[in-house]
Amino acid sequence: MLIRLFALTVLSLPLTALAAPPVRVSSPDGRIVVELDSDPDGRPTYAVQRDGKPLLAPSRLGFLLVDTPKLDRAIAVTAPRTRSFDETWEQPWGERRRIRNHYNELRVTLAENAKPRRHLDLVFRVYDDGLGFRYEFPRQEGLPTVRIREELTEFTLAGDATAWWIPAGEWNREEYLYHRTPVEAVGDAQTPITFRLADGTHLSIHEAALVDYSGMNLTRVEGRRLKASLTPGIDGAKVTREAPFNTPWRTVQIADDAGGLVTSSLILNLNEPNVLGDVSWVKPMKYVGVWWEMHLDTKTWASGPRHGATNENVMKHIDFAAKNGFGGVLVEGWNVGWDGDWFGNGEDFSFTRSYPDFDLEKLSAYAKSKGVVLIGHHETSANAAHYESQMGAAFDLYQRVGVPAVKTGYVSDAGQAKVIGADGKVHYVWHEGQDLARHHLKVVTEAARRHIAINAHEPIKDTGLRRTYPNWISREGARGMEYNAWGNPGNPPEHEAMLVFTRLLAGPMDFTPGVFGMKTRAPDGVATTWAKQLALYVVIYSPIQMAADLLENYEANPGPFQFIKDVPVDWEETRVLNGEVGDYVTLVRKERGGDNWYLGAITDEEPRTLKAPLSFLDPGRRYTAQIYRDGPMADWKDRREDIVIEEREVGSTDTLELKLAPGGGQAIRFVAR
Amino acid sequence: MLIRLFALTVLSLPLTALAAPPVRVSSPDGRIVVELDSDPDGRPTYAVQRDGKPLLAPSRLGFLLVDTPKLDRAIAVTAPRTRSFDETWEQPWGERRRIRNHYNELRVTLAENAKPRRHLDLVFRVYDDGLGFRYEFPRQEGLPTVRIREELTEFTLAGDATAWWIPAGEWNREEYLYHRTPVEAVGDAQTPITFRLADGTHLSIHEAALVDYSGMNLTRVEGRRLKASLTPGIDGAKVTREAPFNTPWRTVQIADDAGGLVTSSLILNLNEPNVLGDVSWVKPMKYVGVWWEMHLDTKTWASGPRHGATNENVMKHIDFAAKNGFGGVLVEGWNVGWDGDWFGNGEDFSFTRSYPDFDLEKLSAYAKSKGVVLIGHHETSANAAHYESQMGAAFDLYQRVGVPAVKTGYVSDAGQAKVIGADGKVHYVWHEGQDLARHHLKVVTEAARRHIAINAHEPIKDTGLRRTYPNWISREGARGMEYNAWGNPGNPPEHEAMLVFTRLLAGPMDFTPGVFGMKTRAPDGVATTWAKQLALYVVIYSPIQMAADLLENYEANPGPFQFIKDVPVDWEETRVLNGEVGDYVTLVRKERGGDNWYLGAITDEEPRTLKAPLSFLDPGRRYTAQIYRDGPMADWKDRREDIVIEEREVGSTDTLELKLAPGGGQAIRFVAR
Repeated sequence: MLIRLFALTVLSLPLTALAAPPVRVSSPDGRIVVELDSDPDGRPTYAVQRDGKPLLAPSRLGFLLVDTPKLDRAIAVTAPRTRSFDETWEQPWGERRRIRNHYNELRVTLAENAKPRRHLDLVFRVYDDGLGFRYEFPRQEGLPTVRIREELTEFTLAGDATAWWIPAGEWNREEYLYHRTPVEAVGDAQTPITFRLADGTHLSIHEAALVDYSGMNLTRVEGRRLKASLTPGIDGAKVTREAPFNTPWRTVQIADDAGGLVTSSLILNLNEPNVLGDVSWVKPMKYVGVWWEMHLDTKTWASGPRHGATNENVMKHIDFAAKNGFGGVLVEGWNVGWDGDWFGNGEDFSFTRSYPDFDLEKLSAYAKSKGVVLIGHHETSANAAHYESQMGAAFDLYQRVGVPAVKTGYVSDAGQAKVIGADGKVHYVWHEGQDLARHHLKVVTEAARRHIAINAHEPIKDTGLRRTYPNWISREGARGMEYNAWGNPGNPPEHEAMLVFTRLLAGPMDFTPGVFGMKTRAPDGVATTWAKQLALYVVIYSPIQMAADLLENYEANPGPFQFIKDVPVDWEETRVLNGEVGDYVTLVRKERGGDNWYLGAITDEEPRTLKAPLSFLDPGRRYTAQIYRDGPMADWKDRREDIVIEEREVGSTDTLELKLAPGGGQAIRFVAR
Repeated sequence: MLIRLFALTVLSLPLTALAAPPVRVSSPDGRIVVELDSDPDGRPTYAVQRDGKPLLAPSRLGFLLVDTPKLDRAIAVTAPRTRSFDETWEQPWGERRRIRNHYNELRVTLAENAKPRRHLDLVFRVYDDGLGFRYEFPRQEGLPTVRIREELTEFTLAGDATAWWIPAGEWNREEYLYHRTPVEAVGDAQTPITFRLADGTHLSIHEAALVDYSGMNLTRVEGRRLKASLTPGIDGAKVTREAPFNTPWRTVQIADDAGGLVTSSLILNLNEPNVLGDVSWVKPMKYVGVWWEMHLDTKTWASGPRHGATNENVMKHIDFAAKNGFGGVLVEGWNVGWDGDWFGNGEDFSFTRSYPDFDLEKLSAYAKSKGVVLIGHHETSANAAHYESQMGAAFDLYQRVGVPAVKTGYVSDAGQAKVIGADGKVHYVWHEGQDLARHHLKVVTEAARRHIAINAHEPIKDTGLRRTYPNWISREGARGMEYNAWGNPGNPPEHEAMLVFTRLLAGPMDFTPGVFGMKTRAPDGVATTWAKQLALYVVIYSPIQMAADLLENYEANPGPFQFIKDVPVDWEETRVLNGEVGDYVTLVRKERGGDNWYLGAITDEEPRTLKAPLSFLDPGRRYTAQIYRDGPMADWKDRREDIVIEEREVGSTDTLELKLAPGGGQAIRFVAR
């Protein structure tokens, strides 16, 4: 028994306050309108419309707290305050140099009408390309420490939509193939989750600035109603914070088409500016590494006769990098600890002691003499507790020998990461909970003190913190190329065209493209054409890009390898010429500090002919288009290597027809003349 | 990076053990086969088929534990042991007297192949009407206390199915309207969840014997894959137990049609036999009460000029009960504590102090003099901590004055129930977590010591514990009649035809039917015909049934009221003549200790003509069928009161045509001649 009507009667709420008119805020261009209101129980809600059409129906807000009443009912939306903001800021590195941060802000106070009469602020920032909102907990009597059991934020889609999503809470964190379903068939989903509405409008729900908080997943309650489901913590609280503090921003990117999501800078704009000062020591670069051969199981991370990280093998890679213009050489399996049951364990890893056949000092010096750097590697098996006990010394060592970047790894099942709790004991936690959120920022800031960049694998999800900490240079966080080495199944032909509109909306990914050797332990090997492998360097944004293949495959194929040598990793500008989620996409990017443009187009298993108007080129200027395209017989299944390399002279008024083979792609370098 | 193939390589599992042939067990009739196996990671799985057709695809088993490695991978299914069991037992009260408990059992040991080499038993019992399985944790080194973070049990439907379900984890626990969706559109769902497969086979997933454990919900991961999602606990553990212990049974009822689920006794069979001994003091009965008038808001629970629980009003109800053959009178709002903000609070309730206008001693004596009993009422607002501090004294009081049954109430939002933890402090918990599971059994056993029966509202879900504790006589746990008093929306015409095949599979419900006064505060009032109100006494099983309406409505309508006076609440046998989930159903029941049969048929908003072959009647015997049917103009919207009451002589070879109006029903009493 007992329902909403009774609750109201019994609690004797001031109904006038609840019946206050809704509060609204619009995007600078006026198209997006957010409306705050209360439902009949005094539950605050927000709704979003664009061009007068509802996108999100009234959706709940609030918190379930540990051992204290919910922040949920009998809440009035009070004291609305608005402001506008408009600035343009510059990325030290990125997919574009200049970003406009232009929004209208609405701040309200959510105040309980009844005991215990707590309050918090709710802040919306509405952009032309979407919105973000967050809760701000002030210091107040009775709630000095906030222990959040669950965040009650919901996102209720107003109409039918197709969703692309990966499940949450599973064994290996973020490494899944994407589902395409109606929104009504979404399960427990990770973010970003991408939607296409019936009219072609695209949405993506995610979060920005995940700092000292628990990562948000979405659980579909029923129908089109998704609710926040925070990653668990050590105890019953998913988040424990001393007030005052802010939650991360809950973000909804909105665009007229799929490509509009890709060029949105909303996530970055909702992060704080760079706090590291001069970060000229963070160097975008391409790199090679002692890596793919382990995934092919011809070398091993562990010591022994097939050990990959030997002085000889590393020197070979240094020589190759120097000869071909690569900045770095990644070496995995260099340190003691790989010989036991390290999966999800990690206690045996030393981050300062090398295997005897790997001489860090000597190899660093050798690399330096050749004008390249070693890229360090710290596999932690998600044992953050163990890693933190050695991290300082490990970074000191790398700083001393001149290793300017470290790839970290957190291989373990979900829920099996290890941290030291406030009680000084080891606790098992999730990769995306508050404890690992803290850990990752600790790693990044400790590394920054030594001018070291971090590229985290099996990471916490990207929420745009690279703006604040520009040494957090890239990460994994999805199925990368490695799944084509041993996955069963491997990545299907649609995979990268899916990533562009989902995972990559969060930020850069160290996908490690560029594999020509197509036969692997995966049933279909690397399920793309060679031309598509090249296109991935443009399509998948990361300021560090690996040339992942065995060196001999590059040496044997200098033609296509030339594009990998030429393509930059830092960009002045990025545009999307066309694209549909999981089907195909064409991106063009202009190199930073140069006049050349680069195009990457990829398709799924369907062959396609895409039109690429070259209006992005400087008007009146001529370019030599160095084209790497699928050959007439190319196919991801059995003629992956059929590639045609040719040159054409073009200008901004030209339109190219990009013929993509099944599972194919095209890469073009436009050299300004 | 790092995947399953690697995990296997790294952990060096004994692959021979994992590759052992699957273990099988069949139902006594051989139609259902359960197969246990391991997936390539050494994860134990079970699969279910019937008549050679897969019902559940291989589905995972295991546990995520607090601060210790998962019980998940690298597990061998070893030491299979089988046995058969066949007995027939008698219910002290129930929907049928005799129940056959006939199953084949398979017990295996799940043993980790690698460190820390833990083990547990997994037991399957396979019946002709479904299966149950549970985990049994033995005492073992390194795992004396088991702290379960999540149960990894999954249920993956093998094919397309329609699902009927209510969402989990929401504000008012179990009181929802049911969704009908494809299985791929199930969200977070409570159990029982009911499925209809393409070939008409019906399944229902639930649990049996929820004792000192956390209630199981189901989260749909993706596709048709549902996983257990236990109700949270006080801290990071959803369940904390000292070994040895068993989990509840995870149950899958399987039937050829919807009606087969209704007559299944699987849930009861998987509970332990009666531990209370002689329970002849537990009396099934019909009752009236000081109740509906509060829901109509003409009286109040709180004190004041409209107080319902006055001596005068209660005596009026006692007189009415005595005159019309009702066993009991429920009185709500009799005790101190209703005047404040008691919703979700409950600290002000006294369970021994009456309001001054309610004289418990005097009224009990008056009731006794009239041959009826008072039914007690304990609204706790889910403050179990507060209730337990007074419960002993409260039951003592009721025992002294001769109150043999208590309706308890747990009105509060989800996650806002209160218990005392092991630390002696008050903690906020869920209605269906381990702490409230313990609390309810504490209430039931304390009540049993005083020969008091318990009818819990806003309860923990029913899992068949009435077999073990026959004084746990009924409960709410779904949207009852009260929603027709004030719900917005109220219960739609399909509601009861939905409950029969979902919530009621778990056990009896104190739905409180029998309302003739159809105009209420709900927009559609009571959205059924009068004939359907009568049919509900047969359709909805409960050993206690309220005549919920205002007394004057019964006095004004002696014709239809006669059926409510006549219908029994305890049964020798129950059969389902026809039915489809959420559409319609016809049940017949034979009274216990008599020769008469009763029929109840209901429909949703669609008018229907149902055939009722009377072959359940004794062959050769004649019966007078006292028929209460929808009149020719009857309709749930505007002619609810159009009822025809007539008599016919019938025998077992007759077939009746039941004409049901939109939102209508039919009730028949077959009096043996």
